[in-house]
Amino acid sequence: MKQSIAPDVVIGSETRVYDFVNLYGCEIGDHCIVGTFVEIQRGAKIGNNCKISSHSFVCEGVTIEDEVFIGHGVMFINDRYPRAASDGKLQTADDWELVPTLVKRGASIGSNATVLCGVTIGEGAIVGAGSVVTHDVPAHTIVAGNPARILRST
Amino acid sequence: MKQSIAPDVVIGSETRVYDFVNLYGCEIGDHCIVGTFVEIQRGAKIGNNCKISSHSFVCEGVTIEDEVFIGHGVMFINDRYPRAASDGKLQTADDWELVPTLVKRGASIGSNATVLCGVTIGEGAIVGAGSVVTHDVPAHTIVAGNPARILRST
Amino acid sequence: MKQSIAPDVVIGSETRVYDFVNLYGCEIGDHCIVGTFVEIQRGAKIGNNCKISSHSFVCEGVTIEDEVFIGHGVMFINDRYPRAASDGKLQTADDWELVPTLVKRGASIGSNATVLCGVTIGEGAIVGAGSVVTHDVPAHTIVAGNPARILRST
Repeated sequence: MKQSIAPDVVIGSETRVYDFVNLYGCEIGDHCIVGTFVEIQRGAKIGNNCKISSHSFVCEGVTIEDEVFIGHGVMFINDRYPRAASDGKLQTADDWELVPTLVKRGASIGSNATVLCGVTIGEGAIVGAGSVVTHDVPAHTIVAGNPARILRST
Repeated sequence: MKQSIAPDVVIGSETRVYDFVNLYGCEIGDHCIVGTFVEIQRGAKIGNNCKISSHSFVCEGVTIEDEVFIGHGVMFINDRYPRAASDGKLQTADDWELVPTLVKRGASIGSNATVLCGVTIGEGAIVGAGSVVTHDVPAHTIVAGNPARILRST
Repeated sequence: MKQSIAPDVVIGSETRVYDFVNLYGCEIGDHCIVGTFVEIQRGAKIGNNCKISSHSFVCEGVTIEDEVFIGHGVMFINDRYPRAASDGKLQTADDWELVPTLVKRGASIGSNATVLCGVTIGEGAIVGAGSVVTHDVPAHTIVAGNPARILRST
């Protein structure tokens, strides 16, 4: 058995899921591809016709609309100041605030990009590979760098 | 069988290890979480109440104290100028010098961060997501960027 | 069964492949090491005496010569402007142009580096950890940063 897919995962029709994935509590639309070594957490939602490439992590609080490309090794974030422990004990879900992220229709996020929480990546926008997204990305723009800045329109 | 855990791994009590991990020769404390797609190498030591998030790599020579948060896709390094081969043959452990790294109590390292070898990340420090840490990080500071620079105190 | 290795993969003699890999349609030379959580795609070619470290992704169109070190979490790219869908349908191989990348003999690519497509990394060059390579890297130089710039000769 090369996959960990919890019984509560909703996967649409004609969606292909590769080996060595860890999916739980998430919804994935129709006609998607989910690559190897991908983890998608509880509460994450992925639309139709999306590609989630290998080695990427989609956390709780992330909503990905239709026709979005997520490159390889992309990391989403949902906690602004993560800590392992509070008062000498491992943190639980009660100890931190989930900050959501939205990736709008037709956007593309390049490989090894990091997307901080609380941002919206606009429709059709392109995030360059290796970028660190710290602010909203306007629709139909290309951003790149650390921190990511607008290069031009698509 | 969804895990590779060598018989010589020491794992503390109430530590949860997810699927698709590769652990060998390492020590992990009590009450930790080790996420999916994590590799922890021989000689690495991890304290109590730590979270080692998915897709991260902890190499030989890394010591992580208690209550440390390691985000997703974090890569540690132990060789300053890695090479595949010497004199036309694949390198062995005798061909390079291991440079240690220390992450002190309560520090947090953001997702997709890269931590070069020979650094100490101070107590309670926060390394921003996507940062490349090339120098020591003082205790209770927040650093970010490539290379990582101090933004402010925590 | 902890590996996904397609029957069409060519693996040389004395090459060691770790658990949790996804290999298909690729050629790997002799005396190599392929780490955990590595994906190597159809058409990728890897020479002799190479190390492909954990969590790395080598895509179609990438040629890696002999004695090359690929760090952990390194992502190659073969599509300049990736999109998930065209005309409302998931893209197929006919919808985009593959742009090749060449890593020459004895080069080293640091962990978490991102290598954009269409570049040549010269003989013996070193790409610093966490770098984003957007242009050719001259032989025997060290580059680092986002975007990667020449620091000095090796």
